[in-house]
Amino acid sequence: MSKGITSRATDYSAWYNELVNKADLAEHSDVRGCMVIKPYGYSIWEKMQQQLDKMFKETGHSNAYFPLFIPKSFFSKEASHVDGFAKECAVVTHYRLKEDGNGGIMVDPDAKLEEELIVRPTSETIIWNTYRGWIQSYRDLPILVNQWANVVRWEMRTRLFLRTAEFLWQEGHTAHATSEEAIAETEQMLNVYADFVENFMAVPVVKGVKTANERFAGALNTYCIEAMMQDGKALQAGTSHFLGQNFAKAFDVKFTGRDGKQDYVWATSWGVSTRLIGALIMAHSDDEGLVLPPKLAPIQVVIVPIHNSDESLNAITEKVDVLVKKLRAKNISVKFDNRDTHRPGFKFAEWELKGVPVRIAIGPRDLEAGTAEIARRDTKEKSSTTWEGIEDTIEKLLEDIQENIYNKALNFRNDNITKVETWDEFVKVLDDKGGFIAAHWDGTSETEEKIKELTKATIRCIPLDNKQESGKCVLTGKESKERVLFARAY
Amino acid sequence: MSKGITSRATDYSAWYNELVNKADLAEHSDVRGCMVIKPYGYSIWEKMQQQLDKMFKETGHSNAYFPLFIPKSFFSKEASHVDGFAKECAVVTHYRLKEDGNGGIMVDPDAKLEEELIVRPTSETIIWNTYRGWIQSYRDLPILVNQWANVVRWEMRTRLFLRTAEFLWQEGHTAHATSEEAIAETEQMLNVYADFVENFMAVPVVKGVKTANERFAGALNTYCIEAMMQDGKALQAGTSHFLGQNFAKAFDVKFTGRDGKQDYVWATSWGVSTRLIGALIMAHSDDEGLVLPPKLAPIQVVIVPIHNSDESLNAITEKVDVLVKKLRAKNISVKFDNRDTHRPGFKFAEWELKGVPVRIAIGPRDLEAGTAEIARRDTKEKSSTTWEGIEDTIEKLLEDIQENIYNKALNFRNDNITKVETWDEFVKVLDDKGGFIAAHWDGTSETEEKIKELTKATIRCIPLDNKQESGKCVLTGKESKERVLFARAY
Repeated sequence: MSKGITSRATDYSAWYNELVNKADLAEHSDVRGCMVIKPYGYSIWEKMQQQLDKMFKETGHSNAYFPLFIPKSFFSKEASHVDGFAKECAVVTHYRLKEDGNGGIMVDPDAKLEEELIVRPTSETIIWNTYRGWIQSYRDLPILVNQWANVVRWEMRTRLFLRTAEFLWQEGHTAHATSEEAIAETEQMLNVYADFVENFMAVPVVKGVKTANERFAGALNTYCIEAMMQDGKALQAGTSHFLGQNFAKAFDVKFTGRDGKQDYVWATSWGVSTRLIGALIMAHSDDEGLVLPPKLAPIQVVIVPIHNSDESLNAITEKVDVLVKKLRAKNISVKFDNRDTHRPGFKFAEWELKGVPVRIAIGPRDLEAGTAEIARRDTKEKSSTTWEGIEDTIEKLLEDIQENIYNKALNFRNDNITKVETWDEFVKVLDDKGGFIAAHWDGTSETEEKIKELTKATIRCIPLDNKQESGKCVLTGKESKERVLFARAY
Repeated sequence: MSKGITSRATDYSAWYNELVNKADLAEHSDVRGCMVIKPYGYSIWEKMQQQLDKMFKETGHSNAYFPLFIPKSFFSKEASHVDGFAKECAVVTHYRLKEDGNGGIMVDPDAKLEEELIVRPTSETIIWNTYRGWIQSYRDLPILVNQWANVVRWEMRTRLFLRTAEFLWQEGHTAHATSEEAIAETEQMLNVYADFVENFMAVPVVKGVKTANERFAGALNTYCIEAMMQDGKALQAGTSHFLGQNFAKAFDVKFTGRDGKQDYVWATSWGVSTRLIGALIMAHSDDEGLVLPPKLAPIQVVIVPIHNSDESLNAITEKVDVLVKKLRAKNISVKFDNRDTHRPGFKFAEWELKGVPVRIAIGPRDLEAGTAEIARRDTKEKSSTTWEGIEDTIEKLLEDIQENIYNKALNFRNDNITKVETWDEFVKVLDDKGGFIAAHWDGTSETEEKIKELTKATIRCIPLDNKQESGKCVLTGKESKERVLFARAY
């Protein structure tokens, strides 16, 4: 097995593409813009789903399922939403094919839909059209629903996991009696996302709000978490939107309050997607392959026997079987790689490429000495350890690795947030160092757009815990009372 | 809360529709043929998914994800497949909308796709097109992959869960080096489905194979499990297909064997869908509402306090909290319904409607006496039980209910399989009694189609464990060597 991944230093983008491919995570399909998520990549998504789903349920949410198709007219009902979503999308116009008389098939012109259907790019419209039937009084509120689904946005330039025409995600859609409650929900879900990304993905995030320009189409306020990749670029890892009464008004969803008065319902929506797998890869992995945080690694421990005979393999297997049981009893996922088709060196490289956090190698001399060699993926350190009690050593090591990966990413992120005061400095830091730039901004969309035009950097967010301080806009010199974070982004 | 469900005896079909609606399982959406699966209905699907997914993984399968869209030309590659699937389907022809100048939006005629995309009705074609890149040698085999996904088939007459344009399902797609191995996989997955439907859904099934007429489009052999609903009609609960080398040939998927020779790869596919929820409802439920088997009930036990003061509610709550912990420690899902907005009678009716297997009611007199009233949903029997050790009583009761529901359905099914010898008898049994008819058939598609035309009954399957006996075809009088099962079906 040849690894041959381009190094990050040589070409970060090629490194990412090759890694996704060689680690068997995903591949481009023959359908324009759509990816195939391969079993190993999908198993990471399953780990993410399980944890997120648990967190959603612990905060009172239930799952449901709404139609894939959205009638075209639904999009016209919320004016800003149509601009954001209905333009680049997959449109279903017919519902039948027929034989073309030449051995092929063609679209049957007699089977044209009266109204075209859009393959959902996001589900606010179909869901709020449904909620109208579910909500009459305050007793029907709140509605706390989440959907796991596929969505389609017709992207012209695609990259596996980061930007594809079809992707998998979850979208929460909640309905509330008051603005305060909806805002609290929006913030709660932002915190759930931050908790997940930091404590499970081991990726530090900045929590903030988007500027008006970068807001979700139809939202009054968009909260986000922004992560930094190893090339210094930003990646938006999750968003939570306070939608006000916009969708309730568009779809006429009213409720009768405790006071007997009618009002429109307040809404939130929030989502994360398979894009998170891209973030996970780009935040931690190295030139040898994936580095997975133990809490999301489909295989946490791999055991490779180093044997010179069937007899020694049998002796090793006997000991390993006992360890496998002990590890599984601790809920640690373990694979005994006893394939006879490959040599240990090949296996070492393969599991490094696939990011398995801990590798145990055991050979005849270890058997005699009552030891084993443990290698950790994150630092590539190896050490000999006693076999007795090895399950506790490993449990502790997995915790260390999780923490170490996070701290490494945190230090990198903190080292790459730079305060700048002048435009020259802004451009220089962006081009030479990259990362996030904390700079003053005059608060106008015009300036934000001008900066994007000039540098491709966008305002990633206005951090939630932002210090208020007076200063001058880095581009226009106008008054500003807080810094915002700029970066080039995925 | 008014139940007011039509009784099964009055109108079985209306009973089903009203029950699905009133028990908050699903509803029709404003998108033609598509359903909304509501949180309670979806939570049943989640229980099904969890169990099936576990069984798939225990038999060595991994999940993956393939594109929603399939290029039109892919369907032309497997001749019989196109007839079965590509005709009634959703066709994406454009990828952009634009403003129509009247405040609305329209399809942009400049954004027409070169090749139309079909929204997947099933994924054999896109998956085998992908497998071509994954398989070179016997070392790459078997591939044991499953996908959880939504699919679309343009149905004209829809019924919630049973037949909708979009539905959720899983589809397994495996690739093998030999015909024998593929057939063994096909049979293994049929057995997994039968195990799930009988032991978790508590619905007995007949395992069999389909006749050529009823075979999956592109399969050499289709295995199925057939269940009987309370109105005597059959419901196909799952299918497992031996696809031979048809898709490998259509998509040119070859492998080099151990002997160095090239051959086409052997395939299977197998699936079950949200249709199973329809089967679950129709097999067990009664005029009061759902009857859910404990192993798939989202809530297994509901506890309703009967209190006349806050003080008595507090005393009850204190005892209930302890019980809730004990039940959860046994992995029993329990809900304490302490809503102050509804009276106990309302709550009883609601949880009956929703099919919760066990209800516990506890009032002040129970507190004094150290007892509680337990009601089981399946038989509606109530009994007073001592509070001490009640968690064990309930655990045992849930097992009894699971078994009782299964046995009831099994007895009903067995009582409604009728052997008939003549055509008059066939028609009379079908119209008067219904159920499955075990009759001789001459083995021809012509006779099968003629019987369907005359009676709407189809051959559900040729049972796997069929006794070989000579007889005369019920319609033509020609020689036959085994009986097959006929029924009207969902």
